Amino acid sequence: MVVHEEDPYNAEPPRSALAEHAITPVETFYSRNHGELPELDPQRWRLQVDGLVDEELSLSLDELRRFEHHEVTATLQCAGNRRAGLLAVRDIPGQHPWGDGATSTARWVGARLADVLAAAGLRHDASNIAFAAPDIAPEATPPAPYGGSITTGKATSPEVLLAWVMNGEPLTVAHGAPVRVVVPGWIGARSVKWVERITAQHHPSDNFFQQSAYRLLPPDHDDPAPGDGVELTAVALNSAILRPDEGAVMTAGPTEVTGYAFAGGDRDVVRVDVSADGGRTWHQAELDDQLGAWAWRFWRTTLELRPGEHEIVARAWDSTAALQPEHAASLWNPKGYINNAWPTVSVTAEHPPEVHL
Amino acid sequence: MVVHEEDPYNAEPPRSALAEHAITPVETFYSRNHGELPELDPQRWRLQVDGLVDEELSLSLDELRRFEHHEVTATLQCAGNRRAGLLAVRDIPGQHPWGDGATSTARWVGARLADVLAAAGLRHDASNIAFAAPDIAPEATPPAPYGGSITTGKATSPEVLLAWVMNGEPLTVAHGAPVRVVVPGWIGARSVKWVERITAQHHPSDNFFQQSAYRLLPPDHDDPAPGDGVELTAVALNSAILRPDEGAVMTAGPTEVTGYAFAGGDRDVVRVDVSADGGRTWHQAELDDQLGAWAWRFWRTTLELRPGEHEIVARAWDSTAALQPEHAASLWNPKGYINNAWPTVSVTAEHPPEVHL
Repeated sequence: MVVHEEDPYNAEPPRSALAEHAITPVETFYSRNHGELPELDPQRWRLQVDGLVDEELSLSLDELRRFEHHEVTATLQCAGNRRAGLLAVRDIPGQHPWGDGATSTARWVGARLADVLAAAGLRHDASNIAFAAPDIAPEATPPAPYGGSITTGKATSPEVLLAWVMNGEPLTVAHGAPVRVVVPGWIGARSVKWVERITAQHHPSDNFFQQSAYRLLPPDHDDPAPGDGVELTAVALNSAILRPDEGAVMTAGPTEVTGYAFAGGDRDVVRVDVSADGGRTWHQAELDDQLGAWAWRFWRTTLELRPGEHEIVARAWDSTAALQPEHAASLWNPKGYINNAWPTVSVTAEHPPEVHL
Repeated sequence: MVVHEEDPYNAEPPRSALAEHAITPVETFYSRNHGELPELDPQRWRLQVDGLVDEELSLSLDELRRFEHHEVTATLQCAGNRRAGLLAVRDIPGQHPWGDGATSTARWVGARLADVLAAAGLRHDASNIAFAAPDIAPEATPPAPYGGSITTGKATSPEVLLAWVMNGEPLTVAHGAPVRVVVPGWIGARSVKWVERITAQHHPSDNFFQQSAYRLLPPDHDDPAPGDGVELTAVALNSAILRPDEGAVMTAGPTEVTGYAFAGGDRDVVRVDVSADGGRTWHQAELDDQLGAWAWRFWRTTLELRPGEHEIVARAWDSTAALQPEHAASLWNPKGYINNAWPTVSVTAEHPPEVHL
């Protein structure tokens, strides 16, 4: 793993590791934390459901598990994924230089948040569902527990889970044990780990990570106040080249290029193009089988690389025929979120060794 | 109106006319037709509902009007909107050079398609809802009536109407009288005018305009077969500059710049930036009040223009913090659909006349 910070633990897999499995192994799955990992006792853990509900609930883990179980294959993507490409445009002090690896995919099993909210009698006037966790984030001012919210429309969609299983194994502490929220198609920040409280309310969470962090600010917005900029919700269309890696040196000839593409919200990836000449000419890549409506799409193609330097570029389209924007320079923002510019890697193809007969 | 073709009638308003009203007057609303306008007798018109339903329906206009009435303010946008920008990249034979005006917004009143489908007993295995109309399109091979389809998920969403009122007046023949489909957030081609038949089925419509037209093809795809490319559904994020017009000459000084931005599907426009120097520096525009979840957003800002030539550029973000792609060259495709590159207009600011005291 590429470790950006030990405490709190923040790490992403290198491209080559991410490329190996369409379902990311737990030990390869990126870790994004804002505080020390809380070690919760599953026997004592309870989930409080309150706010605009007819009946408040306080569920033990056993009680939560009595709800119907559902499995969803979902990609989580950090809003800071590919920030390194924005840092190359202009510095972003105090933020981790995430590469393409702050994105991973797992099979999650849990109860539907919709079912739990229905059991509590969610009131029709609730517009947002807020999540609270016990991990204390020093970067909040003042330091405060992590939290966030999603709209009621999303919260009651069948794909949103309170999950306790990841890839067939009990959730690990690093990934939110005993129970985390999984909000497929939305930025990873809303998939709150170690969730302890769910509140139905009239407004988004007033947590630091909803009101101050995870918002898109204009480039010249130096001193933002809470509520400024755009609240990040569904993930914007994005893609990455996973093989070959940046700076790779290989033998000239047919070269396999692979990567992922991911369309957030309820959109799908429908096409990926790849260029071996910096975007002058393009080849349509093959898309691997769909893992489900909420997962990334791996893609692959074989390019014929002549000896020399090559800039490999990729670009993806979603199901509305929308294309990723070209340049990171257009996307730079003060917190460094949502770099979904066309990914590039520079490689060198060398003459094959001469064969002496 | 700028008339691209008299028969069938295809016309769009000039930018200045479109800019005048956030709700486009009927006589200014763009017209996109593939055949001669059918003059249907409202007294004899019937709507057939069939396919994967428990009970086929045949509704008169009076019977349709007995369903609950709903009003939706919705923008319709032709998939060929802004094709002129693609034509500037490379020729697209046989397609109209639509400008920014193949987009308009109206208040529609009608019955919910969902309610009509429920009355027929829509079966759970239906995945698509197909619409058929009587207008014969010579461009289909062989010439055939117009049709298309949408997914059942969209068809049963509350915003999709069978409309007979446009801006408070009975629908005109040019806009689909007696009844048209209105599919907010999707390309205009799916809002089938003069609808006579609604069929629930296992697959998309096999009509020419679903299988051969209104699909995104790769640039080098010269001889497409039905089903090739990507079926167009929800509208991709787009924007246009409506004032000043291309080539305008004005007095240097403060200059109001206005336009529209539109995010299809269930997304909203959250920010528009405007540049007076070809994209080197940007100013955030003000967004007019939202007309509703399914309507464009007018935006405006005042730029200080010095004497000289200026390239004004705009760019919009949607609620996922996704930005429009920069260049039409990246978007060129053989049928010329979905040009959602950053719009530009070139203007000249002249020295103000000298004042002689």
